[in-house]
Amino acid sequence: MKWTRKDLVALSDLSAEEISFVLDTASEFKDVGRRRLKKVPSLRGKTMVNLFVEASTRTRTSFELAGVRLSADVVNIAAQTSSLSKGETLKDTAKNLEALAADLIVLRHSAAGAAHFLAGRLRAGVINAGDGSHEHPTQGLLDVFTIRERLGRVAGVKVGIVGDIRFSRVARSNLQALVKLGARVTLIGPPTLVPREFERLGAVITHSLDDVLGDLDVINLLRIQHERQKAGFFPGTGEYAALFGLNAARAGRLKPEALVMHPGPIHRGVELDGSVADGPHSVILDQVTNGLAVRMAVLYLCGSVPPKEEA
Amino acid sequence: MKWTRKDLVALSDLSAEEISFVLDTASEFKDVGRRRLKKVPSLRGKTMVNLFVEASTRTRTSFELAGVRLSADVVNIAAQTSSLSKGETLKDTAKNLEALAADLIVLRHSAAGAAHFLAGRLRAGVINAGDGSHEHPTQGLLDVFTIRERLGRVAGVKVGIVGDIRFSRVARSNLQALVKLGARVTLIGPPTLVPREFERLGAVITHSLDDVLGDLDVINLLRIQHERQKAGFFPGTGEYAALFGLNAARAGRLKPEALVMHPGPIHRGVELDGSVADGPHSVILDQVTNGLAVRMAVLYLCGSVPPKEEA
Amino acid sequence: MKWTRKDLVALSDLSAEEISFVLDTASEFKDVGRRRLKKVPSLRGKTMVNLFVEASTRTRTSFELAGVRLSADVVNIAAQTSSLSKGETLKDTAKNLEALAADLIVLRHSAAGAAHFLAGRLRAGVINAGDGSHEHPTQGLLDVFTIRERLGRVAGVKVGIVGDIRFSRVARSNLQALVKLGARVTLIGPPTLVPREFERLGAVITHSLDDVLGDLDVINLLRIQHERQKAGFFPGTGEYAALFGLNAARAGRLKPEALVMHPGPIHRGVELDGSVADGPHSVILDQVTNGLAVRMAVLYLCGSVPPKEEA
Repeated sequence: MKWTRKDLVALSDLSAEEISFVLDTASEFKDVGRRRLKKVPSLRGKTMVNLFVEASTRTRTSFELAGVRLSADVVNIAAQTSSLSKGETLKDTAKNLEALAADLIVLRHSAAGAAHFLAGRLRAGVINAGDGSHEHPTQGLLDVFTIRERLGRVAGVKVGIVGDIRFSRVARSNLQALVKLGARVTLIGPPTLVPREFERLGAVITHSLDDVLGDLDVINLLRIQHERQKAGFFPGTGEYAALFGLNAARAGRLKPEALVMHPGPIHRGVELDGSVADGPHSVILDQVTNGLAVRMAVLYLCGSVPPKEEA
Repeated sequence: MKWTRKDLVALSDLSAEEISFVLDTASEFKDVGRRRLKKVPSLRGKTMVNLFVEASTRTRTSFELAGVRLSADVVNIAAQTSSLSKGETLKDTAKNLEALAADLIVLRHSAAGAAHFLAGRLRAGVINAGDGSHEHPTQGLLDVFTIRERLGRVAGVKVGIVGDIRFSRVARSNLQALVKLGARVTLIGPPTLVPREFERLGAVITHSLDDVLGDLDVINLLRIQHERQKAGFFPGTGEYAALFGLNAARAGRLKPEALVMHPGPIHRGVELDGSVADGPHSVILDQVTNGLAVRMAVLYLCGSVPPKEEA
Repeated sequence: MKWTRKDLVALSDLSAEEISFVLDTASEFKDVGRRRLKKVPSLRGKTMVNLFVEASTRTRTSFELAGVRLSADVVNIAAQTSSLSKGETLKDTAKNLEALAADLIVLRHSAAGAAHFLAGRLRAGVINAGDGSHEHPTQGLLDVFTIRERLGRVAGVKVGIVGDIRFSRVARSNLQALVKLGARVTLIGPPTLVPREFERLGAVITHSLDDVLGDLDVINLLRIQHERQKAGFFPGTGEYAALFGLNAARAGRLKPEALVMHPGPIHRGVELDGSVADGPHSVILDQVTNGLAVRMAVLYLCGSVPPKEEA
């Protein structure tokens, strides 16, 4: 197929064919990280701006390395130092970046819809690196990439996603990609964090991890945000860990080939025990490696679409 | 002409011929931003340090991209993390940077004279990126570049600069460049912010925007600093906007070809209405694009002067 | 000799031969900083991460430039923005960096042993850029490099190190390198800051600078930390300067060829007078220049050792 999108805003926009095409492209780029010379000239002379209005060292670093390995020139702009704090609107910031001839803008923002807003107004490509509770499409892609690489397929795979589904952009992007590629998704967590609406997106919902644990091919444990606890969505990390934490005993009940995933950074002893994070089921570090390959693929594909003339 | 300055400290130092030479050089570099491969090897292997003792994402990003597109190696140093906060003097910081074989130091500093101080003490080229209320020479250059490009000339052009003239390094650098190139400059604002002394620099002063608006070829709206309001220099942004803001009604009285400029970031509804910022007179985003070309020219010219032997 | 270490954790680990080999390699790299094209392709396509969990602009900048001049891709991660502050352990952070295929990790950390901990757990090379009060090996190397370059030898040279020995990683790394290369080291300072235990490392201890000043070939003045004063280790900077500061009068009693060193940033008027810092004995800026050469050598050597297969 021919890739025609200058932006990656949400996996809900992509067809199954497009998702598979990104994954195939990422497979080719994954090899670059294993070479002595970890660099290809694909985006040489292109300018990529990492605009992180919400802080995230991990995602910023992964995108920065992805750009650098494609030979792009990468400039980092962090929220706290940007003129956004002087009252400039997001659109003005972005128009300024475009006036500087930025080719790609990677945007992390606390507001759902921020990347969509920019993508429609700029000739530059806009890559959503997480917008509020909406989507985090490269995380969704790297998770299905990891499943496909490890299990050889996505269709029919039984994936459980555990935790704070309600507020999670990671869950939303995973759900979009997994359902489109034919996986069977179960969302697991307390009723306050796993609302019934998600059934309409094609998922099964349960409030008991133990009921489904032995049947899963993949268990993806979301990060617990302490802010949610304060807001009354769950009683405490101890109780959360007791009900939904993947401790060693629960891990012993997993299928032999089951994968344990986590978007990181992990809380050892909360979402999962340290022994499980470092154990044979864990593919958590593969996810990190694959994230770089997926981001290279996305930057390469979106950065290679010729810009349209401005309306 | 042959460029002989290793530093750009103030436009008050430059002759009209030197200013025109920078603008001509910038015209050539402007083309680089339009290419697919936005890079020339002019400063390859040279080290440029962005030393921002006062924060400014926009100017820092513009200089960083200018350096990168000239293939220089660019290192960013921000005030809050520098050893300046451990009590090291500016001179010691700069001598250290020179000991690291920095070729160019781009300095943003809250003290007027900081760039001049360093320029006289270092073999490295020093580019003033704004020193207190003194000068911001690349801003002055990009503004006259924009006027020259759009109107075909600077001599005889009627330019109004509106706002906080008293404390504005942007106003000072504009005034220097414009007067030298033969423009006719009117400074506009409340008496507290537009003192009479500026007449000696070759400008006309008025306290009524409406009196001169229809006669201007260019109107350059300076950013209002809320700190000035607290200090009693003007009563409030509402009253300021009523008297000096370029709203849609006032914009309707501009000459058809008049240019609306602003150094950014803009306050929509204060210095100008959003509709005017995005309207047909506005060249605000051209200024951003031209700023990059002008900074490439300045870095290239100053970075290509062979260093003198130390005294 | 053949360099076999992927890590540089502590000079206590190195043999005299290894130390000399780094210094010889640094001599070759020093020339790069004097060229017009300050770049060699030695680490092209390699990824270096500057992980500064404790802030240090000077050391970070020096390592960043060293990496860039070796053509490595350098990514900076600062403590305050890293997920370490979200409770991720140092090991998890490092494993993540390794999953991103980082080849070299330069670590500054407030905990003694942090670099050692990582070095044993990662395939990537780990360069200690200062770990608590333990070691700062590249500082020790650049100091002996400077002595060797200026005086032609290290063996037999009389070196005085003045100040806060107890808590100083600079003192520890200097002492290791100097003793191994045959220098005669005297530690000088108040009894609270220069404990007797250091005699076991091969140093002579004195509490009177004036007793030994005229006999030294090198005097290395450590930075005074105000925190120590609050904790009662010395009465005040005025009294400290009176007893241990290298003022102009004391500098007049130095041997004609004696070197004055300081790791920077200096407190003029405390550890030494400004006239001495800028005077004929001072090699403080040579130390900065040599630091870059030494860091290039260390990155080059450790970055060129083939990684072992994971156990």
